[in-house]
Amino acid sequence: MSPSAAASPSRDAGSPAPEDRTGAGPGFPVVAVVGGGQLARMMQPAAVELGVGLRLLATGAEESAALAVPDVRLGAHTDLDALRSVADGAAALTFDHEHVPPEHLRALEAEGVAVRPGPAALVHAQDKLVMRRRLTDLGVACPRWAAVADAGAVVAFGEDAGWPVVLKTPRGGYDGKGVRVLADAGAARAAQDWFDAADGPLLAEEHVDFVRELAVLVARSPSGQAVAWPVVETVQVHGVCREVTAPAPGLDDEVAAAAVGAALRVAGELGVTGVLAVECFETADGRVLVNELAMRPHNSGHWTQDGAVTSQFEQHLRAVLDLPLGSPRARAPWTVMVNVLGSSRPDRAAEDPAQMYRSYLHVMARDPEVKVHLYGKGVRPGRKLGHVTAWGDDLEDVRARARHAADFVAGDVDE
Amino acid sequence: MSPSAAASPSRDAGSPAPEDRTGAGPGFPVVAVVGGGQLARMMQPAAVELGVGLRLLATGAEESAALAVPDVRLGAHTDLDALRSVADGAAALTFDHEHVPPEHLRALEAEGVAVRPGPAALVHAQDKLVMRRRLTDLGVACPRWAAVADAGAVVAFGEDAGWPVVLKTPRGGYDGKGVRVLADAGAARAAQDWFDAADGPLLAEEHVDFVRELAVLVARSPSGQAVAWPVVETVQVHGVCREVTAPAPGLDDEVAAAAVGAALRVAGELGVTGVLAVECFETADGRVLVNELAMRPHNSGHWTQDGAVTSQFEQHLRAVLDLPLGSPRARAPWTVMVNVLGSSRPDRAAEDPAQMYRSYLHVMARDPEVKVHLYGKGVRPGRKLGHVTAWGDDLEDVRARARHAADFVAGDVDE
Repeated sequence: MSPSAAASPSRDAGSPAPEDRTGAGPGFPVVAVVGGGQLARMMQPAAVELGVGLRLLATGAEESAALAVPDVRLGAHTDLDALRSVADGAAALTFDHEHVPPEHLRALEAEGVAVRPGPAALVHAQDKLVMRRRLTDLGVACPRWAAVADAGAVVAFGEDAGWPVVLKTPRGGYDGKGVRVLADAGAARAAQDWFDAADGPLLAEEHVDFVRELAVLVARSPSGQAVAWPVVETVQVHGVCREVTAPAPGLDDEVAAAAVGAALRVAGELGVTGVLAVECFETADGRVLVNELAMRPHNSGHWTQDGAVTSQFEQHLRAVLDLPLGSPRARAPWTVMVNVLGSSRPDRAAEDPAQMYRSYLHVMARDPEVKVHLYGKGVRPGRKLGHVTAWGDDLEDVRARARHAADFVAGDVDE
Repeated sequence: MSPSAAASPSRDAGSPAPEDRTGAGPGFPVVAVVGGGQLARMMQPAAVELGVGLRLLATGAEESAALAVPDVRLGAHTDLDALRSVADGAAALTFDHEHVPPEHLRALEAEGVAVRPGPAALVHAQDKLVMRRRLTDLGVACPRWAAVADAGAVVAFGEDAGWPVVLKTPRGGYDGKGVRVLADAGAARAAQDWFDAADGPLLAEEHVDFVRELAVLVARSPSGQAVAWPVVETVQVHGVCREVTAPAPGLDDEVAAAAVGAALRVAGELGVTGVLAVECFETADGRVLVNELAMRPHNSGHWTQDGAVTSQFEQHLRAVLDLPLGSPRARAPWTVMVNVLGSSRPDRAAEDPAQMYRSYLHVMARDPEVKVHLYGKGVRPGRKLGHVTAWGDDLEDVRARARHAADFVAGDVDE
């Protein structure tokens, strides 16, 4: 028993201090997680089952993960002292997002904190220019790209690589934010405002005419053990993940093996610890080009909660603790994950929490085999509120069931 | 955001109040759970994924579930005010154990609390004499039994039903406690001390010469929807569950159907809400006799976490909230669950928490497909510390893997 609990053996329905309840049993480690979003939230079920502890740095008590984890510290991910506080005594420090300043992570690492992934790896998920340079050095296939210092350089890149051109801010973008598609030289010249606001070069990329998007999810431990889940097909709408099918239907075995090989090589060369998601484009001529890297559990891996022997959340905890990794084997021929996004229908956009509970109840009644995962968030149009998984032998049936359930919970269909 | 969180928008790594963090999203219900053991703990991953909240009444901050659930109130399950406090505002009140006094549950029910299962049902899991009388009235097959007021009545029962006789205290027993096997009339007369200490009759039962033990797990909602998982085979050692195989190997289809039918009928007739576990004896002549009832998630159902579409913990929450129930279908031909019990080896009985973490690491390394579930408890000989599940197509392989992993984590084998 902790000292403060011993000092206050309340029997009058008082509450024990959260900091005494990390979830770890005696002799078991605690993982500190920076960020209170749904990715941190979904680490909690895995931590409880593993018997390891979680400690969270969140910015508010109402955040998705803060609702689920006993030991929550309130503070900003940009505050080095808050980071120190949450890391104190933890076996590893990991992340729900990529927004912790690299200089803070280097400071923590210098102080002996096991930052996982470490700042030298994580910068490749924080800075798209650093990522492009490194992948190109490693010979990993990427879209054509250039570091551009002004609108004129974008025009020159577009004249050479062809239009449209994709212009990205190297840092801070996610879910389609920080990305513009420029149709022609005129649009490129009109994007000078981004350069004026930036403190360095931006990233220009060819607009890849892909046939579909793929994602390769791997996990790597500090000891160097690494595993890969089956390659999945992902569907993004306006830059936001909408649907994931595992495995990617009809994917050529050699193409899949090459994509997995590249992802494992990136994980090893960059020294990634934890989950690495490699988002890719598949082109009509069978090339797989790397689009983005994420070094944390990723939306493209939510299917693993119900569809794989080891979920990405369990695996991430095992990896950052340097525990042996679990099997990434799929448990069904097909698993489909569809995000529940806040509806933009006018009658649904108005916040009505009870509405979602009723929808959820109806989905459970209609299909007792789908799994609805919710994040405890208030409804806003387009917001990631949860996801649904379905699995089975018949892809069309599985996909139809997952899509219907997700749309119904969101309120985008009525029956 | 809750009022108190709004009043203290701390950014200095303070901790938000636990009572503001039940885990429920806006508009979603909270389930109050009495008891802080591993059964309550294992409801937390299910609650987080469903997006519903949990609030716990525990007796100490170091209890298994208190380590995993943010909103914990400290208090005794025998304290009506503590029960009222934890039930306040919850959509349902449910249990980790059967020890809440029936008069408190009736008082809460009279005050409008949705007690699930309600006291009228729960008494059949609290009092073995009440259970025997009711099952006999319903025509459900039981061992021969009698209510006995003194040692002489036990002798008379034994002379009629045959020796040995099993003598049970009707209330408060679990895991083999409160049970004596009396070999003959002399042993029965020597058991008079139990009658002297009891405040009413005891239960005498024939000692069933079973070939194996079975368990039927069902769930029922207040609306009357009910589902049954496949019938399992259980192995108890000294009254403590050791191993569960799903489904029960070689069980005759008609016998299985009859057992499921009886369990569903008991759930309906008694008005059970939530999970009901019916522990049974299978005899050499193919009879199935009911041994015990439990009205909560049960050790015989831990296999469902990894082995069924819907785990007993998710199902219990869905049932007590009157949500539609999930599919109880098995996900693999065979699933075996083996408990991790605190070792009684002298070198292991000494508390060495780090020892279990090392064992756990080795098990993960040896078999990346087993799932080790731990409860965050300190080691004591015989204590339920966790469990392991394995699944697959080959029962002997699955059983060997689960047994080895559990024995290794416990410290009962070295390699």
